[in-house]
Amino acid sequence: MVRAIMHGCNGKMGQVITGLAQDDEGIAIVAGVDQYTEQKNDYPVFKSLAQCDVEADVVIDFSNAAAVDALISDCVAKKIPVVLCTTGLTEAQLEKAAAAAKEVAVLKSANMSLGINLLLKLVKEATKVLVPAGFDTEIVEKHHRLKVDAPSGTALALADSINEELNNEYAYNYDRSQVREPRKKEEIGISAVRGGTIVGEHEVIYAGPDEVIEFKHTAYSKTVFAKGAVEAAKFLAGKAPGRYGMEDVI
Amino acid sequence: MVRAIMHGCNGKMGQVITGLAQDDEGIAIVAGVDQYTEQKNDYPVFKSLAQCDVEADVVIDFSNAAAVDALISDCVAKKIPVVLCTTGLTEAQLEKAAAAAKEVAVLKSANMSLGINLLLKLVKEATKVLVPAGFDTEIVEKHHRLKVDAPSGTALALADSINEELNNEYAYNYDRSQVREPRKKEEIGISAVRGGTIVGEHEVIYAGPDEVIEFKHTAYSKTVFAKGAVEAAKFLAGKAPGRYGMEDVI
Amino acid sequence: MVRAIMHGCNGKMGQVITGLAQDDEGIAIVAGVDQYTEQKNDYPVFKSLAQCDVEADVVIDFSNAAAVDALISDCVAKKIPVVLCTTGLTEAQLEKAAAAAKEVAVLKSANMSLGINLLLKLVKEATKVLVPAGFDTEIVEKHHRLKVDAPSGTALALADSINEELNNEYAYNYDRSQVREPRKKEEIGISAVRGGTIVGEHEVIYAGPDEVIEFKHTAYSKTVFAKGAVEAAKFLAGKAPGRYGMEDVI
Amino acid sequence: MVRAIMHGCNGKMGQVITGLAQDDEGIAIVAGVDQYTEQKNDYPVFKSLAQCDVEADVVIDFSNAAAVDALISDCVAKKIPVVLCTTGLTEAQLEKAAAAAKEVAVLKSANMSLGINLLLKLVKEATKVLVPAGFDTEIVEKHHRLKVDAPSGTALALADSINEELNNEYAYNYDRSQVREPRKKEEIGISAVRGGTIVGEHEVIYAGPDEVIEFKHTAYSKTVFAKGAVEAAKFLAGKAPGRYGMEDVI
Repeated sequence: MVRAIMHGCNGKMGQVITGLAQDDEGIAIVAGVDQYTEQKNDYPVFKSLAQCDVEADVVIDFSNAAAVDALISDCVAKKIPVVLCTTGLTEAQLEKAAAAAKEVAVLKSANMSLGINLLLKLVKEATKVLVPAGFDTEIVEKHHRLKVDAPSGTALALADSINEELNNEYAYNYDRSQVREPRKKEEIGISAVRGGTIVGEHEVIYAGPDEVIEFKHTAYSKTVFAKGAVEAAKFLAGKAPGRYGMEDVI
Repeated sequence: MVRAIMHGCNGKMGQVITGLAQDDEGIAIVAGVDQYTEQKNDYPVFKSLAQCDVEADVVIDFSNAAAVDALISDCVAKKIPVVLCTTGLTEAQLEKAAAAAKEVAVLKSANMSLGINLLLKLVKEATKVLVPAGFDTEIVEKHHRLKVDAPSGTALALADSINEELNNEYAYNYDRSQVREPRKKEEIGISAVRGGTIVGEHEVIYAGPDEVIEFKHTAYSKTVFAKGAVEAAKFLAGKAPGRYGMEDVI
Repeated sequence: MVRAIMHGCNGKMGQVITGLAQDDEGIAIVAGVDQYTEQKNDYPVFKSLAQCDVEADVVIDFSNAAAVDALISDCVAKKIPVVLCTTGLTEAQLEKAAAAAKEVAVLKSANMSLGINLLLKLVKEATKVLVPAGFDTEIVEKHHRLKVDAPSGTALALADSINEELNNEYAYNYDRSQVREPRKKEEIGISAVRGGTIVGEHEVIYAGPDEVIEFKHTAYSKTVFAKGAVEAAKFLAGKAPGRYGMEDVI
Repeated sequence: MVRAIMHGCNGKMGQVITGLAQDDEGIAIVAGVDQYTEQKNDYPVFKSLAQCDVEADVVIDFSNAAAVDALISDCVAKKIPVVLCTTGLTEAQLEKAAAAAKEVAVLKSANMSLGINLLLKLVKEATKVLVPAGFDTEIVEKHHRLKVDAPSGTALALADSINEELNNEYAYNYDRSQVREPRKKEEIGISAVRGGTIVGEHEVIYAGPDEVIEFKHTAYSKTVFAKGAVEAAKFLAGKAPGRYGMEDVI
């Protein structure tokens, strides 16, 4: 059984992961790290990873960008692999994570859900078959009304994954209302729908001659990201130093 | 049985309507008008409505904008109701049609399909219930790669129908990629997907707290517009002078 | 502001409703009733409605069938309107509720969500227009893997609502795999998909000549039923004795 | 350029393929075979393949089961590869085709569309990742009201493709209305929706913990099967004897 330290254990995602781990025989949370050291669960909580004296195989991080610098340093010092789920890292932090990967295993992904990471892979294969056969590719994503970025990072990751198979020669089109002209062949349209409390929906559409193929992913709660983190931790324990992604897990 | 004259009878839509009428006991095409007077079907074909000496109850028009001026004059002269399906009319032609409606029944609609016209009505009721309860409204439409206008006229008609219930106070948002901010309450997002040979799909989405309601219309061929025209003709025969729309038919 | 008593206040749904009411200026939970009288929120909790001495305008019930008999008697005794959300009531209990409605306002509905209740109404109008025009009606519902009844009560309620417009002459078809024959005109197909943790999806499909119209409702969490209960309570306060449904609320 | 003989050239699908080939620089129909030898196109038409004296690289067959025995014998005699698209072949005919494959290249597939054949492959990969992670698999297919078999052969082919990855240990469930019990883990639910003129829709649903992934294929006309046949013919010309499928083409 993999022994994990939950970094950000008292936050919302930390608690969700703690719950998932309780029902998973392949992993156990043996300690937590959080700036609020209240012990909410049956494991000890420390103010920093440096202070944590519990032995473990992997760290799962769902904290905030400000806490990530110390985290990376501590993982290197302790030679413990780390699953980095915190988003909004700076360029400097991303470089620090890349440097750390020379000494410990580091896993980082644009979207932690198994489903999205499977799609990122399958759209490559679909693109390879369908685009040469005359299909056009479009992406529609739907999120809650408070999301400030549009399109979502995941929609862009899907577009990038498709575009890699097209020699990165396709442009992204976010708005067709300003010109009156037929669709260009070498573009990928990306539409962002916003409303209510939609957690996250991504749809990749291949439209060809009298035939349409759609790949759709729907997240019903943020638990899917927690679940992905747990699977990633089980995968990463014991791995050699290096950079890993969710595509290695699935 | 309603006796109809098919204006534009040798065009693609004229032929589709002719086929539908053959299987419909409520209507018969008794004559056709077309600039190409080849007789493709079992009714006589004339170069203009003025030259047509067959008695009828209604004219169905699916021709081209250039032919519509003479058509309207002839309908007024003959006191025969007309279903105007030709698109791309000029402002002057629309005014001429409006003037003609004082003397004969004239039916004109943004989209001839029964389904779309039903949706135009139902979204009003949905808006009345859902928007005050905190739902946001978005529209996604999908069409073939050659369509030059985006969003489609039908998507705009749906948005207008919704907006009427909101005192026309909501703005339409075609592109969210340029700003980083939460969705505004008083907007309707409209996305246009283009690809392949998609005939026409329209989706109205109401996204509320943990609940989403979607109304979706899919056209599989242009036959749906022909079918709407036939129903409109059966409705319009014998009607008093005035302006009618598909909403009166359904 | 409507003053409500939450019957079943310490259960899952009772707590969700308590949370919603805190953010709603139109309603306040002034007392709770639960067999576990722990005070989780800032209102007093009583073992039964009879023991509750706090004045209120309406009772919201999300408890269990065993508790409903006493609840109904107490509501009649106190002359207080009641929103009955508990499911699985016996015939005898339903009769008791109907009898109580002669003395107090009683609201009961197959599904408490605003969206579903709107659909129950709109499908009637759609049926009236589309079925005479040659459209067939089908229903697909999706729920989590643990749901034991199939099709869902809500799918049946949608079918019944449609069938009422068809003089109840259409039969429901749950399985087409046993015979090799074309679809009968006078039937409504109902399919039940089960898997994962899907909260609840209902889709009503009208398939006609080259045209399909779909109405789809997706629930993302059980909060939608709580929200419906809150709206129902605000509606029911002050109403005359009688039987009410969510269709009166929307 | 591949030279093809169209077997069944005067039938509906034969004419569609003829039209597609005219716009495709990689293939030319050089002769046709049909029981009605009217010459509709600019190639000669023969009563049987045996009588056809035009040299070609491949035969495309979209005729009827009664004509297939002679066709196979003639292909073997002439040593010409054949794309068999006619459906409803008997066991004996399938065996004859298999035997013929020892002497010429024979391509046969449950569904000729590129999209469906891509899905048949991708669902294998999805199954491998998602089912071990706790996802359930369901299939919903939609077809026109006249289709007599349910579920469709393509839906069963999709289920079989998934089941192969599950050691063929999963049972197919066509009806959940007869029992009240939770979904069994080791089953694949298959639902058949029938209505209107729907050409063919297939949806494979993976429902997991708070996450759903859907693969959907929509055919807008039978042209998609013609297009698949053309691609198959271009692939098969010049191939060594053996059995081929659309999975080899894509």
